[in-house]
Amino acid sequence: MSAESTYADWIAVAYRDRRLCAWAMAGEGTVRAQADTALTGDSGVEEALIALLDPWLGQAQIPVIGAGLGSADGAWPALPVVAVPAKPLDLLPVATACSDPRLRLWRIPGLSQAEPADLMTGDETRIAGFLAANPSFDGVMCLLGLRTCWVHVSAEEVVSFQTSLTGELFQDLSLGDSLRDAVAAPRMDMAAYGEAVTETLSRPERLAQRLFSLRAAHLLHGLSPEAARGRLAGLLIGAELAATRPYWLGQAVAIAGAQDLVALYASALRGQGVSPLCLEAGLLTQVGLTRYHAAIQEPGP
Amino acid sequence: MSAESTYADWIAVAYRDRRLCAWAMAGEGTVRAQADTALTGDSGVEEALIALLDPWLGQAQIPVIGAGLGSADGAWPALPVVAVPAKPLDLLPVATACSDPRLRLWRIPGLSQAEPADLMTGDETRIAGFLAANPSFDGVMCLLGLRTCWVHVSAEEVVSFQTSLTGELFQDLSLGDSLRDAVAAPRMDMAAYGEAVTETLSRPERLAQRLFSLRAAHLLHGLSPEAARGRLAGLLIGAELAATRPYWLGQAVAIAGAQDLVALYASALRGQGVSPLCLEAGLLTQVGLTRYHAAIQEPGP
Repeated sequence: MSAESTYADWIAVAYRDRRLCAWAMAGEGTVRAQADTALTGDSGVEEALIALLDPWLGQAQIPVIGAGLGSADGAWPALPVVAVPAKPLDLLPVATACSDPRLRLWRIPGLSQAEPADLMTGDETRIAGFLAANPSFDGVMCLLGLRTCWVHVSAEEVVSFQTSLTGELFQDLSLGDSLRDAVAAPRMDMAAYGEAVTETLSRPERLAQRLFSLRAAHLLHGLSPEAARGRLAGLLIGAELAATRPYWLGQAVAIAGAQDLVALYASALRGQGVSPLCLEAGLLTQVGLTRYHAAIQEPGP
Repeated sequence: MSAESTYADWIAVAYRDRRLCAWAMAGEGTVRAQADTALTGDSGVEEALIALLDPWLGQAQIPVIGAGLGSADGAWPALPVVAVPAKPLDLLPVATACSDPRLRLWRIPGLSQAEPADLMTGDETRIAGFLAANPSFDGVMCLLGLRTCWVHVSAEEVVSFQTSLTGELFQDLSLGDSLRDAVAAPRMDMAAYGEAVTETLSRPERLAQRLFSLRAAHLLHGLSPEAARGRLAGLLIGAELAATRPYWLGQAVAIAGAQDLVALYASALRGQGVSPLCLEAGLLTQVGLTRYHAAIQEPGP
């Protein structure tokens, strides 16, 4: 953006599911531009961050507030984590030295839970974004992506949480040698999805066998890729819902994530008598980071 | 081997877990040489087979008997499968045209099961190898690799079988982004393995959450990679044992596979009061293919 430095007042950044998203922000909440990039195995987070933000950088230093930013392969110190119970809106951004002097970087601490051992980096900001507008929410948030985080929220506090690898399992299995051909479809059959959710919810211990059965049903019975893809998603999400039943049963549930994933979880939960609130995750992140930005004591110019 | 063609009388071949293994055989059961190769995503099975066998081929055509050989990406017709119940020792090798005229190829049919849909290609030969020496075996065979096949055997028949993707899940997860660092160890801690087996056997529905917990325990509590690797194997094998309990509970169990994998399953089963017989899978395959070779009516010279 040349030498002009009023284009953005600050930059919001979030890292989740190996994607780095950035928003060029004006004032408290106006999005001027948006950019994102996928990180491959080799690229470091700091390097990717600088490359992503470069078009927005002028001569003046600009504040960058980031959620989910770990140690970037040693470029930064370990990200501090706060033990639950903890209030996401009270987390204090941590000033972090960045190798590019144009960035004045703050990172949002994560949350940790000792038993069962669990770690949240990034989703605390989505939760903060939701609580900023809904401070009296008492229930469970379900934050979706390559991992799912189920969070018990009460009185603005994260009381406990539980992370599952469901999205990553779906990705690995749908691209892996055994099932790739069976589930190669751009869409999934939602009826097959719903049946598979019900099956695994009632017999979750049969997951590994049912997964292989997709391949056999494809080869033997000509199960369509759309139906097989729906079944794969249903088997994995059903198993997750079986494991997290104490979280969602009889609770107010708010789901946030990409639209298609939110639709899958919402449909499965409705089948269990739960009527979830569906939220857009990117917006929650922006609102959360805007709150954290407002809390930073900027040094004078 | 130059033009000399008495080096091997025939060649035994088995394809499983994306590895092609071959044995140069003299008479009925003497192994003259052994070779194997891993198939990558792109290479076809027929091409890999010809390259692997080439050093053993002379001017005369040589019989090649293969287990687990599918359609080789269309190079061969679909492999016939026989519906269970079926006797592995009664399967008839199928003559298959090969693009290399030096090979006279026979493929061993697989087994299929309509409900639950399942498919076995290759393990029927291991079972035949075992039954050749133990025709009165009545119980369950557990055949290990990237997939596990549990097989109910009685009166020389495969009555039913059940395949799980456990080995493939272990491989995908231990190399995937979430857990790679946590489980990067050359060995696994067997105490951690045993505990994880017990945990999942009693609460199999918590698998996806416990998997993620490995990463958190590594980062938060400094869980050693050896212990995390043991736990990962234990969680997956425990879940499989929970799903296959009707197969192994109170049965005579024979396990075959690579030595380290056999040791893991044997230890888990012993913890459940089962004393399995442990077998070497390569030997079973050789014996099975030798039986099939003997059944072939060779054309005159």
